[in-house]
Amino acid sequence: MSSTPVINSERLSRRIEQMGKIGALPGGGVCRTALSDADRDARDLLKLWMQQLDLEIEVDKIGNMFGIYPGGKDAAAVMIGSHLDTVTTGGLYDGSLGVLAALEVIQTISEAGIKTSHPVILANFTNEEGVRFVPDMMGSLAYSGKEKIELLHSSISLDGSSASVKDELERIGYLGTKDCGGYKAKAFIELHIEQGPVLESGNIDIGVVEKVQGIFWTEYIFEGRASHAGTTPMTARSDAGYVASAIATYIRKLVLDTGNMQVGTVGNIELFPNLINVTAERSKIVVDLRNPDLNILAKTQHNLDHYIDRLVADEGLKVQKKELVRLEPVSFNQDIINTINEASKSLGYTSLHLTSGAGHDAQLLSSVIPSAMIFVPSKDGISHNVNEFSSIKDIEMGANVLLHSVLNLAL
Amino acid sequence: MSSTPVINSERLSRRIEQMGKIGALPGGGVCRTALSDADRDARDLLKLWMQQLDLEIEVDKIGNMFGIYPGGKDAAAVMIGSHLDTVTTGGLYDGSLGVLAALEVIQTISEAGIKTSHPVILANFTNEEGVRFVPDMMGSLAYSGKEKIELLHSSISLDGSSASVKDELERIGYLGTKDCGGYKAKAFIELHIEQGPVLESGNIDIGVVEKVQGIFWTEYIFEGRASHAGTTPMTARSDAGYVASAIATYIRKLVLDTGNMQVGTVGNIELFPNLINVTAERSKIVVDLRNPDLNILAKTQHNLDHYIDRLVADEGLKVQKKELVRLEPVSFNQDIINTINEASKSLGYTSLHLTSGAGHDAQLLSSVIPSAMIFVPSKDGISHNVNEFSSIKDIEMGANVLLHSVLNLAL
Repeated sequence: MSSTPVINSERLSRRIEQMGKIGALPGGGVCRTALSDADRDARDLLKLWMQQLDLEIEVDKIGNMFGIYPGGKDAAAVMIGSHLDTVTTGGLYDGSLGVLAALEVIQTISEAGIKTSHPVILANFTNEEGVRFVPDMMGSLAYSGKEKIELLHSSISLDGSSASVKDELERIGYLGTKDCGGYKAKAFIELHIEQGPVLESGNIDIGVVEKVQGIFWTEYIFEGRASHAGTTPMTARSDAGYVASAIATYIRKLVLDTGNMQVGTVGNIELFPNLINVTAERSKIVVDLRNPDLNILAKTQHNLDHYIDRLVADEGLKVQKKELVRLEPVSFNQDIINTINEASKSLGYTSLHLTSGAGHDAQLLSSVIPSAMIFVPSKDGISHNVNEFSSIKDIEMGANVLLHSVLNLAL
Repeated sequence: MSSTPVINSERLSRRIEQMGKIGALPGGGVCRTALSDADRDARDLLKLWMQQLDLEIEVDKIGNMFGIYPGGKDAAAVMIGSHLDTVTTGGLYDGSLGVLAALEVIQTISEAGIKTSHPVILANFTNEEGVRFVPDMMGSLAYSGKEKIELLHSSISLDGSSASVKDELERIGYLGTKDCGGYKAKAFIELHIEQGPVLESGNIDIGVVEKVQGIFWTEYIFEGRASHAGTTPMTARSDAGYVASAIATYIRKLVLDTGNMQVGTVGNIELFPNLINVTAERSKIVVDLRNPDLNILAKTQHNLDHYIDRLVADEGLKVQKKELVRLEPVSFNQDIINTINEASKSLGYTSLHLTSGAGHDAQLLSSVIPSAMIFVPSKDGISHNVNEFSSIKDIEMGANVLLHSVLNLAL
């Protein structure tokens, strides 16, 4: 190359804003849950932009979208991308950034007239967030062959309608015919916001992600007895609401006592009948435990289950436990990590090697494609929040690292 | 009277079953929340039965229904009744028994050809349960003049629709024209199931209710910060879900430590956005505290608020507190208590003087009419539950005590 190509940050910024209008919430932020109308509109816009770049577009059976910039025949591809779906109170950057930066990288390469030896594939994976349908990271799960497509298709929406993933893929026009997985690929790189405070607080430009921590999601449903709040003695209660609360309270103590980067959250609690003057007959909580060390994570889960067993026996309840997610910690590919590291250095950016606290499509892809991730700073570490923000200056650096990593791998 | 009149238990039992079919739940029990279609159907059936007895029917501005069996002109009436609305997972007896037993008492008097000197008025009070609309005991609150009708009319449904009490009264055809309150009455007696275990466990026929315990309902809304469950350090959280849970857990300990008949319940918890992988940005709980002693009740509430203030400060949240209900303990009228007691004795039943753990319309009526209550045993003390049950043998005894109390007061 005669000069170092760089991405067009103004164009990328404009696209992030334009995408952020799809599913926009009145007070700011975005609700674009998987396979909703807003997700469809976002996909349609991405498709239009990919068509404008003459990319070959493919959609697989789980709705993953791919835009292929051609390289040498039979050469292994470099895949880049992320997801366009969001949580119900999400921001403009989580997921969207990785997809739109991938588009920008390909457009930059294309406009520079660079012919790559290897194809470059933009990927938008279905239902990374897992808000409307479980499991989360559904598209990359299907791509990596870790779950049967029929089982994922039959997952029923959590929004109270009885629609399945397959129903909704058909409805929004993204039930593709391509089998999941199977591109010959030499690398997958996902650019993402950090969603944590480390880069910003250290004033560091680029996070080179080496690992993703393990994630356990466990649903507990408790069956107690509805009884009158005024007439039932405290000692005669079998209160499923009390048990749900006591567990959510205990988890804070358990993870603080455990230390060693252990985190734990109960963001989802439901009581039934959920009335002021009736003890809950039934309750549901989902516990999210994460740790980069599988042994510590498993030990924390064990301690929690021990506490729950005892509490449930004391209160005279029945419990049903369901393991929704069991993702072991993942170490990314050292060659891809080195490539990202060198790209960042060659551009003169400061960088730090990190472990991701959040789950990402890259951790599933890594079982079938050598993978790694690039993080850019998140303001105040805030994410899954309408106030999520990353500056265009930080985004530009991240996208340039992605561009140069791709050029190193695909030329 | 030549012979002691008794109620027709077969007819009463049949009517309880017939009423229980309105709003019946698939697995048993009833959902007949105030001003719903089911409530309308229940009211229509009651109206039909009152018409068949040639009662003069009046409906007041809050939808309270009255059926008047005439007595001497200008003589003070004896009022009897309860409510037809239920909780969402209610049984066949709570409320309904008091209304249908009142109907049975009047029919028995009528069929015996007894002309009373005093009118006997059957009353069905609107929205006793407070499930679809707050405050609860709305009809008796309006009747007793303790709250302005305009304010009650403007209460918005808690079911997510934006319908007001007035809208729903109009819709179901029970927005009456009569001003609330104002009947010249010498007594109000409410027959009700105990909703607790005392009578059954003591093998006692009749509860003579002397007091109703005080009830405090307090709503707390917590505003924290939505943050990513995987990337946000435990020490950097402002988790409205954790705070809601910790308070619900603390209340169990607080009321057990307090003792002295103190009970406390959190049956209603809501998190927002209520997602597995996002700490709750907002939460709502409603705390139900009850005690027959106002000083102990107020002290418990004070201790709770002290705990909440500290916890909220520690977690960095904002809190909005709203006092939904502040009902002081009530002592019923000694003359009416004596009348019930004597009726029970004259019929050869065993009886016990009790304090009601639940709130009842009678406690509000008691501020404007000399009032008391009759309890019949509840199987296993279970109420606000689809398995709520009282035997027809016990019901028959309760209704006969109501009949003889009315005869003593109205002849």
